[in-house]
Amino acid sequence: MTNAVAPLPTTATPAPAWPRGFRSSGVAAGIKKPGLNDLALLVTDAPASAAAVFTRNLIAAAPIGVSRAHLGTASRRIRALMINSGCANAATGPEGARRATASCAALAHALDIASDEVLVNSTGVIGVHLPIERIERAIPDLVRELADGSCERFARAIMTTDTRPKWATRVVRWTDGAQERTCTVTGVAKGAGMIHPDMATMICAITTDAAVSPTDLDKMLRHAVDRSFHRISVDGDTSTNDSVFALASGAAGAAPEVPLTQAITEVAHELALMVVRDGEGFERGIDVTVTGAATPSDALTVAKTVAMSLLVRTAVTGGDPNWGRILAAAGRAGVAFDPKVICVRAGGAPLFERGAPAATSRDVVRAAFTASTVEIEIDLAMGSGSDRFHSCGLTSRYVELNADYTT
Amino acid sequence: MTNAVAPLPTTATPAPAWPRGFRSSGVAAGIKKPGLNDLALLVTDAPASAAAVFTRNLIAAAPIGVSRAHLGTASRRIRALMINSGCANAATGPEGARRATASCAALAHALDIASDEVLVNSTGVIGVHLPIERIERAIPDLVRELADGSCERFARAIMTTDTRPKWATRVVRWTDGAQERTCTVTGVAKGAGMIHPDMATMICAITTDAAVSPTDLDKMLRHAVDRSFHRISVDGDTSTNDSVFALASGAAGAAPEVPLTQAITEVAHELALMVVRDGEGFERGIDVTVTGAATPSDALTVAKTVAMSLLVRTAVTGGDPNWGRILAAAGRAGVAFDPKVICVRAGGAPLFERGAPAATSRDVVRAAFTASTVEIEIDLAMGSGSDRFHSCGLTSRYVELNADYTT
Repeated sequence: MTNAVAPLPTTATPAPAWPRGFRSSGVAAGIKKPGLNDLALLVTDAPASAAAVFTRNLIAAAPIGVSRAHLGTASRRIRALMINSGCANAATGPEGARRATASCAALAHALDIASDEVLVNSTGVIGVHLPIERIERAIPDLVRELADGSCERFARAIMTTDTRPKWATRVVRWTDGAQERTCTVTGVAKGAGMIHPDMATMICAITTDAAVSPTDLDKMLRHAVDRSFHRISVDGDTSTNDSVFALASGAAGAAPEVPLTQAITEVAHELALMVVRDGEGFERGIDVTVTGAATPSDALTVAKTVAMSLLVRTAVTGGDPNWGRILAAAGRAGVAFDPKVICVRAGGAPLFERGAPAATSRDVVRAAFTASTVEIEIDLAMGSGSDRFHSCGLTSRYVELNADYTT
Repeated sequence: MTNAVAPLPTTATPAPAWPRGFRSSGVAAGIKKPGLNDLALLVTDAPASAAAVFTRNLIAAAPIGVSRAHLGTASRRIRALMINSGCANAATGPEGARRATASCAALAHALDIASDEVLVNSTGVIGVHLPIERIERAIPDLVRELADGSCERFARAIMTTDTRPKWATRVVRWTDGAQERTCTVTGVAKGAGMIHPDMATMICAITTDAAVSPTDLDKMLRHAVDRSFHRISVDGDTSTNDSVFALASGAAGAAPEVPLTQAITEVAHELALMVVRDGEGFERGIDVTVTGAATPSDALTVAKTVAMSLLVRTAVTGGDPNWGRILAAAGRAGVAFDPKVICVRAGGAPLFERGAPAATSRDVVRAAFTASTVEIEIDLAMGSGSDRFHSCGLTSRYVELNADYTT
C-alpha cells in the first residue's frame, strides 16, 4: 500500500467509463439556475456492496442521516446513489429529513427497488429547504437517461463552485490460474469550498466492479480516505454534507485485496489533489512535508498548521518569499521541537538551517515561492515521524467568492 | 473583577498621559523607511516592578529571550523598555541574540543603569537581522527626547501595519483614612497582523503608578491578558514576538488590589478590541457570544471556532446573511451539543431555533449582517458555561496586504 503522490495530469483527461455494472445520468432539475445540471444518479445493475465515510460535523445534513440509516441495514447492499447540487438540505430540521426520505421513495418507485437501497446526498446552500417537487418531477427523465460508459454527466451534475469536473480511474490486473483478469476503480468528486479534514472531500463516489464484501469495502475506503481527503484543506471549514461513497458491483469477480486497496487509495488521492487544486479562488498550491518528527501525528500537526496558516497562504499567493511565517506557524503548532536544530526548505532550497537563516540567494527563494505548487519541507530533527499536507494560497478571489455566496 | 466589554469610543481620544514616574520618547532610527518613527523608549524614574506575558510560539524572537532573562533576575525591577518596529529579530539565530543583548547594553550605558534593568522587543519582518548600528546611533536622541506626559510618540513608534495608534487609560480612586487618593493605569499597544490567542497582542505596554510587587503585578497581568488578548483573533497566527509588558512605578503608593486589577483588565480589554478592530484589511467586526455550554471551556472553543471560520468571516465581509456557516462552524468545533435544541441569533434576531430555521425576515437578518460589528449569539442549551470571542471579517484587502508584505 502506498502513500505516494500520483503525478497529476497537466491537461484534462477525457472522462473515464464507470466499471462494469454501473449506469449513470445527470439532468437539470431546476434546483440551480434553469438549464444547469443539478441532479445526478448512479445505479447498479444488481445490489452492490456499499460503504461511506461521512462528515463528523454535528450539524450533519438531512440526507446524511438518511444515507447512514440505509447503510445501517443488515445487507448494506445498495442499488442507487442520487446527489443534487444547489441545495445542501442542511440545518433544515425534521422537514429536511422528511424531504430527503421522500426523494429516496420517489426514486425507488421509479426504479422499482426498495427505498433503503437508495443513498442520497445534497450540496449547496445551508438552511434552505430541498425543492422536493422539482426532484420528483425530474426523476422520470433522470431514470430514462441512464447509460453505461462515461461518468461525465454525473460528474458535472454534482459540481457547485468547482471550475471543472473531477474524475480518476485505475485498472487492477491479476492472474487467476492461467487467466489474465482486470477490474476497474473509477471515482468522481466535487469540491471547491468547506474543504477540510474530517471530512475534506465534499462529495465523492468511488466505484469498482470488483467483488468485495461491504465490510472489506468499508476498510479499504477508510484506508484510502485517511491518506487522501484527510490530508487536504482549502479553508479549514468542515461541511455539513461531506461524504465519500464507495460502491462495488462485483461484475469483475473477486480481486486481490492489496492492489485493489492501492487503486482505491490512488483514485482517492488523485481526486483529493484535484479538489484542493480547484479550491475556490485557487492560484497556487502548497504541499508541506514534515520529516524527523517525534511521531507521525506530530508531523501531521505541524504540516497541517503550516499549510493552513493564513499568513503562509497569503505569502504563497503573492509569491512572496516571507519564509519567517513558515517558522512562526510551525512554532505555534503545539508540537515540541528544538528551533536550534530544525531545517526548512522550499522547492528544495534551504531557507533555515540549525537555528539561523540559510545563505540561499533571494532569487532562488523567490523561484521556489512562485512555482505552481510551493513545496515546503520541514525537518524537525527529533525522530522519524513524517507526513504531508496539501492546501493552496489564500486569494482575494476566494474572499470575493465567499463574501457574496448566497446573494 | 469584570469580564464586561468596555464601550469603545467612536472617535479618537487624545493620547493620555503616562502615570507618574514614567517618561517616554520615540524617534526615527532608520530601521523602517527614512523619517518613520521606529524606535520607542519608556523609562521609569526609579526601579519599577515589572511583569510580562510572552508568546508561546517555540520560534520566540531573540529579544523575547533577552527580556525573559532580565525578568528572571531576582529583583524583577526594571528601569527601561525599548521597542523597535521594522524588524522582528526573529529566526535570526545566535547573531540575533547577540544584537538584542547589544541593544540593551547600549541603552543601559546611555541611561547609566544596568543592562539587566532593560526590557526589549522588536516587531516587523521575521528572518532579517536587526540593524544594531542604527539603533546605537539613535539612542542618544532617544534618551535626549525623553519626556513625561503624553504616550503618543511611544505609541506611534511601535506601529507596523496599524492604521492608528492605540492607547487606553483608567483612573482608580480610593480613600486612605480621610485622604482621597488615585492611581492611573495607561496602556499602549500595536497590532494588525499575526493576531491570535497565546499571545494575541503583538506588543502592549501597560503602566501604573500604583505600588505593586512584581509577583502581584504578574498575577494581575495574567488575569487581564486572559480576559482580553486571549479572546481576539485576526488571522489565527501567533507571532514570534508577542508580548504584554506591565510596569508599576510605585509613585502613587499602594492601591487596593481589586479595583487596580479591574483597571488593568479594562485597559487590556479596550486595547485588545482596538487591535482586532484595526486588524489588517478591517472592514467589519465579529463578536461571538456562546451561552448554555456544558463548561466555560466548551463555550470558548465554540465561540473561537465560529469567530475564526473563514467562511463565517467572508460572509460577514460581504454582509451576506449566510448563517448556515455559523452552524457548520459550531458543529465542527469538537464540542458535544444537540443540534435539535440549539438557538442562534445575530444582532438579537433569531436565525435558528431548536433544530430549524427561524421565521425572521431576510431584511432583519441582512441588517444584522451589515452592522459595523456582527453580534452572533449561540445558546447550546447544555449548561451554564459562557464566553465571548472577537474577530473581524476576512477581506480582499487583508489578502492583498499579506500577499506582498516583504516585497
